[in-house]
Amino acid sequence: MSHDHSSEHPFDAFNILIKQMPEPSAQAVAAVRARDAQLTKPPGALGRLEEIVEHLAAWQDKEMPTVERPTVVVFAGNHGVTKQGVSPFPASVTEQMLKNFSAGGAAVNQICATWGAGLKVFELALQIPTKDFTEAPALETRECAGTVAFGMESIAGGADLLAFGEMGIGNTTSAAAIYHALYGGKASDWVGRGTGLDDEGLKRKAAVVERAVALHKPHLTTPWEVLRRLGGREIAAMAGGILAARMERIPVLLDGYVACAAAAVLHAIDASALDHCLAGHLSPEGAHAEVLRRFGKKPLLNLGMRLGEGSGAAMAIGVVKAAVACHRDMATFASAGVDNKA
Amino acid sequence: MSHDHSSEHPFDAFNILIKQMPEPSAQAVAAVRARDAQLTKPPGALGRLEEIVEHLAAWQDKEMPTVERPTVVVFAGNHGVTKQGVSPFPASVTEQMLKNFSAGGAAVNQICATWGAGLKVFELALQIPTKDFTEAPALETRECAGTVAFGMESIAGGADLLAFGEMGIGNTTSAAAIYHALYGGKASDWVGRGTGLDDEGLKRKAAVVERAVALHKPHLTTPWEVLRRLGGREIAAMAGGILAARMERIPVLLDGYVACAAAAVLHAIDASALDHCLAGHLSPEGAHAEVLRRFGKKPLLNLGMRLGEGSGAAMAIGVVKAAVACHRDMATFASAGVDNKA
Repeated sequence: MSHDHSSEHPFDAFNILIKQMPEPSAQAVAAVRARDAQLTKPPGALGRLEEIVEHLAAWQDKEMPTVERPTVVVFAGNHGVTKQGVSPFPASVTEQMLKNFSAGGAAVNQICATWGAGLKVFELALQIPTKDFTEAPALETRECAGTVAFGMESIAGGADLLAFGEMGIGNTTSAAAIYHALYGGKASDWVGRGTGLDDEGLKRKAAVVERAVALHKPHLTTPWEVLRRLGGREIAAMAGGILAARMERIPVLLDGYVACAAAAVLHAIDASALDHCLAGHLSPEGAHAEVLRRFGKKPLLNLGMRLGEGSGAAMAIGVVKAAVACHRDMATFASAGVDNKA
Repeated sequence: MSHDHSSEHPFDAFNILIKQMPEPSAQAVAAVRARDAQLTKPPGALGRLEEIVEHLAAWQDKEMPTVERPTVVVFAGNHGVTKQGVSPFPASVTEQMLKNFSAGGAAVNQICATWGAGLKVFELALQIPTKDFTEAPALETRECAGTVAFGMESIAGGADLLAFGEMGIGNTTSAAAIYHALYGGKASDWVGRGTGLDDEGLKRKAAVVERAVALHKPHLTTPWEVLRRLGGREIAAMAGGILAARMERIPVLLDGYVACAAAAVLHAIDASALDHCLAGHLSPEGAHAEVLRRFGKKPLLNLGMRLGEGSGAAMAIGVVKAAVACHRDMATFASAGVDNKA
């Protein structure tokens, strides 16, 4: 007997929220632009730092945007598809790395500490991996919807800037399958080396993605079904987190290849669902550049990082902090006694 | 009577130093690589953050590199060429902005404060602008050499990472002239909008650069002569600072279009003179991308900033801090009990 009663439409609640998403504040953006024009610099000279401040103002609805409580939220999940040999690391590493996050030993811990950012880590039923999606849907409908809802709850705590990250051996395979299902093309277009696959492993991974998408194709009637059948718990939770951030007017920094698979599900439902997000970092993994192009977003950073953990987005928190500090604390032409243009 | 007695060769002292430049420490790099291989991440997954740590180790000659005293050094100078109408801002702004730096009101102040970086600002004879280099050499030989030497002294104070920045209305014209003199091509290849020239101003600026380089061409026998005839005091001082940092094994983050004109002078004397430098930020100004290509350097950041003040390089200090924090504070596979590859 299945727990999946489609008559209950467990994803409907999220669809209703998506229809009620708040819009950017034109008034806050106008206030930022008016102040920016008075700061002791040529117009536009801070480049994307100015764009960042406008973005924060628009979504926080604050004429003076803040980055006082930037928070990285990391979700960890295990993947049944690992039994197809898609990662050079054993699945046990997911739980071990979770302990490493808790003990403060991972890369994302050090990056957050550098900026004074908060870090929250959530374990998502690590003892119950998703089903191997080459054989069956990765998650039951209620399991998937419940995990999206859990991700929505995860943002509680007063953050004014959020980044979502993940840990899950096998999850670049899941992300590739989501992209292939949403965007078409060939499976090999969307697959990358993950934690370090060799050429043979890469071919195997592409074949796994191709087989999985072919199996589920007749049932991929909505982006939620793509998430449920090909995703993972950490990907579902990130989708919930990104959506909840929008509802709460908290700007989001998107992380890399896997985190953007969660974003892609929302984007496929409503192309404006990521308007509150900035792309934090371009991953060299697989097709991340193409995914960002489809989102219409230019990454703030391109540092060759391909670690997951939200580490790329976490790096971008520093950029946002500096941008806000410039806007908030710079002198004006009048206050500093500096002549404006001749 | 001229103060320029070429028989004394005032630049010879710098040429001797350049021949004695220290080399990177292979031992420190090997130690960094050995530790990196043990950190709880796939090999290479931190991308350029790993490259940054190796660079710091190599030049600091420290097996565990540090960023405890990052310092931005800003030099301000005035330019006789401003009388040719090459900037929309009056020359008086140079001194006004210097006061703004001292009062903590400029962009670079806020960026340094964000990372806890030090900021030192030096005024270089603002009441005596350089000569208009469309008519005469910008600086006398001893004046130029003395300013290079002043720049060398400026790094005193125990910095373990340096960035050099500048303020000087008119100095993008000077930088363009230096590039045109060193690299050839057309004047218009090297000229940009600076603080915000319109199309007509841009044409005028290119004509000024073309005329100046044509005037001095027969005398541009060494890169020092290029600096002296077409440069400015802040550019000369930055060249001294970059060279002194090399002698003291302090890694440097290169700023944008004007700061790289100082670097270009050293690079033209010895192609290895910038080996201790990382490109901090790609400026959209003029031909900065082409200059970095000639240096063989890929910028850490590309945020569309075109402000000067060392602000682009100052932004990159945050990236370096996070890179060092990851290398220094991450757990190892053994200490965290994380399985390495299967």
